[in-house]
Amino acid sequence: MGSRYAIGLDYGTNSVRALIVDVADGREIATAIWTYAHGHQGVVLDKDPNLARQHPADYLKGAEVTILEVLAFAAKTVPGFKSESVVGIGVDTTGSTPMPVGADGIPLALDPKWTANPNALAWLWKDHTGWAEAAEITKLAAEIRPQYLAKIGGTYSSEWFYSKILHCIRTAPEVFDAAYSWIELEDFVPAALSGTLAPGKFIAGICAAGHKAMYNTAWGGYPDKEFLAKLDPKLAGLRDHLTPRVKDVSSAVGGLSAEWAKKTGLPAGIPIAVGAFDCHLGAIGAGVKPGVLVKIIGTSTCDITVKVNTDKLADVPGVCGIVNGSVLPGYFGLEAGQSAVGDIFNWFVEYVKPAGLGHVELTAEADKLKPGESGLVALDWNNGNRTILVDQRLTGLLLGQTLYTTPAEIYRALVEATAFGALTIINRFEEYGVKIDEVINCGGIAEKNAFIMQLYADVTGRPMKVSRSAQTPALGSAIAAAVVAGAHKDFASAQAAMTGLKEVVYQPDAAAHAVYAELYTIYRTLHDAFGTTSGAANLAPVMKRLMDIRDRVRSA
Amino acid sequence: MGSRYAIGLDYGTNSVRALIVDVADGREIATAIWTYAHGHQGVVLDKDPNLARQHPADYLKGAEVTILEVLAFAAKTVPGFKSESVVGIGVDTTGSTPMPVGADGIPLALDPKWTANPNALAWLWKDHTGWAEAAEITKLAAEIRPQYLAKIGGTYSSEWFYSKILHCIRTAPEVFDAAYSWIELEDFVPAALSGTLAPGKFIAGICAAGHKAMYNTAWGGYPDKEFLAKLDPKLAGLRDHLTPRVKDVSSAVGGLSAEWAKKTGLPAGIPIAVGAFDCHLGAIGAGVKPGVLVKIIGTSTCDITVKVNTDKLADVPGVCGIVNGSVLPGYFGLEAGQSAVGDIFNWFVEYVKPAGLGHVELTAEADKLKPGESGLVALDWNNGNRTILVDQRLTGLLLGQTLYTTPAEIYRALVEATAFGALTIINRFEEYGVKIDEVINCGGIAEKNAFIMQLYADVTGRPMKVSRSAQTPALGSAIAAAVVAGAHKDFASAQAAMTGLKEVVYQPDAAAHAVYAELYTIYRTLHDAFGTTSGAANLAPVMKRLMDIRDRVRSA
Repeated sequence: MGSRYAIGLDYGTNSVRALIVDVADGREIATAIWTYAHGHQGVVLDKDPNLARQHPADYLKGAEVTILEVLAFAAKTVPGFKSESVVGIGVDTTGSTPMPVGADGIPLALDPKWTANPNALAWLWKDHTGWAEAAEITKLAAEIRPQYLAKIGGTYSSEWFYSKILHCIRTAPEVFDAAYSWIELEDFVPAALSGTLAPGKFIAGICAAGHKAMYNTAWGGYPDKEFLAKLDPKLAGLRDHLTPRVKDVSSAVGGLSAEWAKKTGLPAGIPIAVGAFDCHLGAIGAGVKPGVLVKIIGTSTCDITVKVNTDKLADVPGVCGIVNGSVLPGYFGLEAGQSAVGDIFNWFVEYVKPAGLGHVELTAEADKLKPGESGLVALDWNNGNRTILVDQRLTGLLLGQTLYTTPAEIYRALVEATAFGALTIINRFEEYGVKIDEVINCGGIAEKNAFIMQLYADVTGRPMKVSRSAQTPALGSAIAAAVVAGAHKDFASAQAAMTGLKEVVYQPDAAAHAVYAELYTIYRTLHDAFGTTSGAANLAPVMKRLMDIRDRVRSA
Repeated sequence: MGSRYAIGLDYGTNSVRALIVDVADGREIATAIWTYAHGHQGVVLDKDPNLARQHPADYLKGAEVTILEVLAFAAKTVPGFKSESVVGIGVDTTGSTPMPVGADGIPLALDPKWTANPNALAWLWKDHTGWAEAAEITKLAAEIRPQYLAKIGGTYSSEWFYSKILHCIRTAPEVFDAAYSWIELEDFVPAALSGTLAPGKFIAGICAAGHKAMYNTAWGGYPDKEFLAKLDPKLAGLRDHLTPRVKDVSSAVGGLSAEWAKKTGLPAGIPIAVGAFDCHLGAIGAGVKPGVLVKIIGTSTCDITVKVNTDKLADVPGVCGIVNGSVLPGYFGLEAGQSAVGDIFNWFVEYVKPAGLGHVELTAEADKLKPGESGLVALDWNNGNRTILVDQRLTGLLLGQTLYTTPAEIYRALVEATAFGALTIINRFEEYGVKIDEVINCGGIAEKNAFIMQLYADVTGRPMKVSRSAQTPALGSAIAAAVVAGAHKDFASAQAAMTGLKEVVYQPDAAAHAVYAELYTIYRTLHDAFGTTSGAANLAPVMKRLMDIRDRVRSA
C-alpha cells in the first residue's frame, strides 16, 4: 500500500488554507491559500465599526480553489501521489460565525434575493453588533440560569451565536423571518462537502455548539425554551430548528458528495470529519493532551488544554469555555485567551510609530534591556481582557515613564504585559485543579520571535516549547480526517504519529524569573485594582468611566 | 528730565540676559543674551548624571558682555539714550545655586588652585548629588524641627543649599575646608557689582535664604546650631559665617562699584537691588499681587502668588515655599510648581518620536479632538511631583489605550495631565485660604501656544491671561532696580506703570469645562491612589517599588 494522505481545510478571517498531510508521519506535502473575494480582505464592513460579515459563496469557492491547487502541487512534486491517496478531509474555521439558512439548509446569501443584504451573510466572529444583546443574555442567565454562565467564564459574549441572532431578530426581522435556521461556519463546510445540509441530515460540532451556543447534555442540549423565550419568542422558536445531532471530531458528518468529488477529483465517499474551531483543531495539531497547554499566539491568543472527562472538574472562573469533547473526544476542552497580543505590538508600531522603528529594530533594542531596568509596567488590555476577567470594557495602561523612557523600553513593557497576562491564565488553571506541566506555543510569534518566547519563559518560569508545524489548525483538521478515515485508531495515536515539537526549547533564566516574579506582583496589583472589585485597591470604575465619557463625547 | 531706565540681569541655566526698561512705562528698549562659556551649554557635567555645576567666572563675564551690548544697542537705536540715563540694576538668578567662597568673599573657583575642581564651582540648581543628604535633612527636621518643614511643603529638596553643602562636606572635605562660607548666585552677582562681597558688607536676599536655607525670623534666622550640628558639626560652624543681613528686593545691596562703572560705562553708585530667584522677580514682572497667580511655564513651571503678611496664613501642605517677603515686600511669597510640563511634551516628541511628528503637527491634530473623546487620562509625573505631593520618586502613567490610540490623542492627554496638575495647585491654594482670582501666564508656552492656554482655561474653568512681557524675570529685576532707585515709590506703583497683559484672554468653554470636571475626578482618583497613602485606593507603593527594582537592576 502506498502512502495515504489527509486534507485539512483551515478557514481563517481573511483566507482559507488547504493542507495535504501524510497520515503516517505528519509530513506536510502541499499547501495553498485563497483570500476571500468579497469585502475588504474577505470581510464585508460597514460604517458601524462593530459590523463584520462574510459571504458564504467564498467558503465554497475557497474549498474548491485550494483543494484543486494542493492536489495539483502534490501530483507534480510527490512521486506516486494520486488524488485517490487522500483518505479524508477535516475542517476548522473561525467562530462563532453563524449564517441564516433556508429550509433546504442553503445559506440565504446564496439566493440572489438576499445576497446584497449584509444581515443575510455570515456574521463573522469579530462582528460585535450584538453587544447590547450579549449583555441582555448575560443578565438573564445570571438571574435564572446561572449554570449556563458557569461553563463560559461568567459572561456571554457579543461574538457569540445568540447575541448575533437576537440582534438580527431585533434589527433585521425580515432576514430572520426568511431563514429556517442558522448554521455555524464550522458546520456549514463539512455539511456542504458531504451534501448533508438539509434538515434531518445535518450534524453540528460540539465545539461551536458547546462554546458558543451553550449546548450541554447536562441540561438537555441547547438552552431551554423558557429561557430563550424570555429573550425573544422567535429565539425559542428557532430552538426547534437547531439540529439535535451534535458530535465531536471523532465522527464523520458523511462522505464526500458526488458533486464535490467531481469538482475536485477526490474519491467520492471519503469521510468528512465533524468541524471545529481553528484553535481547537490547532491545539490537536500542536499535540494537546492532559497537562499540556497549547498557546496559539497571533494578534490575540487562544490558550487550550484538556482534562479527562471522568475527572471531577470545578468550574474555572473567567475561563471562557469548558466543553466536554470540544477539543479531544473523551476530554473536557478548556479554552482561555488573551484579547490582544500581537495586536498590541502592532498598535505601538503602526499607530504610535515610535521613531519610525519596526518590530525588528524594537525587538533588537528591547532584547538588550534587563528585566525591571526600565521601571515600566503595563496592562495588556488595549482590547479588553478575555481571560480571566472576561471584560471587553477595559483599556491599556502604561506606568513608570520618566523624561527619558525610550520606545524600546515601552515595547518591552508591552511584551512583558502580555507575558504577565499569559501567566495569569496558567495560574488560574492551576488554582482550579487543571495542572499545566508543559506549554507548547504555535502561531507566527512562536515561530519567529525568540525574544518573546524567551521572555515568556522568564516570566512564567516554565520552558516554552514550539510546535513543529507552522500550520497547526490545518494539521489538526488533517488529523481529524485521518482518525475518521480509520488511518489511526484514535487521536492519541494520530497525534503521536503526526505532531511534534521544534528542537529549540526556551528555558527560563532563574535570575530573570526572580525579577519578573516581583514585577508580576505589581502587575497583579494593578490587574486586580483596575479589573476587579475585589482587589485591595479598588479602581475598577476608572477605565469604565473614561470609556463612558469617551463614548458619550464621540456620539454627541 | 529725560527718560530714565533700569537694567534687569536675568541669570538662567544656560545663559544670562540683560534688559533695559523704561521705568515710566515698562517699554523694553534693548536686550542681549550671552551663553556661559564653560561646560556644555554653560553647565559643567560629569559621568554622574546628578552632577551639574557652573563656573562663577561666567557670571561676571556675562554681566559685562550683556550690559555693554544693551547699552551700545540702546545708544544706537533710542534717541537721547545715554548710559547716564540708567538709574539702577536688578538681578535675578536660578537657585538654589550656591558656591564656596574664600575669606574675602571671592569664589574659590576664581583661584587657579581650585578652578579645575568641580566641587569648587557653583552647584547649579539642578545638581542632585545631595539626594541622600536631602533625605537625611528631611528626616532629622521631621524628628526635631517640624516647624522648618512646615514652610517648605514638608520635604527638604536635593536641589537646596544644605543638601549640597553637606554633600560637599562628606565627599569633598578639602573644598569645604578651604572655603570660608557659601554664597547663593542670587547674592553673588549684586555683591560683585557693588563690591560688597567681603564678610561684614555682604547682604543676602530673603528669597534664597527663606526658600532654600530655611531662614525665618520666627526662629531667629537660619536653622539653629544644634540642628545643624546633628547633621555635621562643620555645618554648624558654617552658620557663623552666613551673613545675618538678609533683606528683600526693596533694598539695595549697595551702589555700582567704581570697577564695574569703569567696565560698563554706567554711572558709579547707581543702586543694585537685592537679588532674588528668576521666578520670583518674574512673578513681579508679570504683575503678581494678592489674588493673582503667576504661572511661569517652561520645561517645568513655577507658580507664584502672594498674600498680605498681616493676614493669618495657615501652612499650605505640599506648597514648596512660604516666605515672608520672598516675592513682594510686605507679603508672604508662596511658591508652588510642576516638576515637568514642557519637558513631558518634549519627551514624547524627542524620545518616543511618534510618527516623526513635531510639536506643531501634534498640536494641530490634538486641537481637533474633543475633551474626553480619546478615553485617555495621564498623570504628569514623568519627573516626579513638586506640588502638592513633593515627591521626586513618582513616575508617569497613561491609561485608556486601545488598539487605535493615536499620537495626537496621547499628546493631548499629556497636555491635559499638566492642566490637571495646574488645577490641583490652584485648588490647594484655595483650600488653605489663598484665594486665586486671576491667573497670569508667562514663558514660552504661554506666549506661543494658544492650544495649551485654551485647554488650561477649559480644565481650570478660569480665564488664562498672558503677561505682556516675554521676559518677565528680567523685567521684574528692572522693576526692583526702579524701586531701589526711587523711580517709583513702591512695587505696586512700579508694577502698575511697568507691567501689563496681552490683549488675548483665553476664556473657558463651559461645555469643555463640564467634561474636564468629570475627567479631573478621575485624574484625582489616580493622583491620590498612586501619590498618597490617604486615597480611597492605596497604590502608593506601586511606583516606588518599580523604581526600586529599576535602580537595583541598573546598579547590578
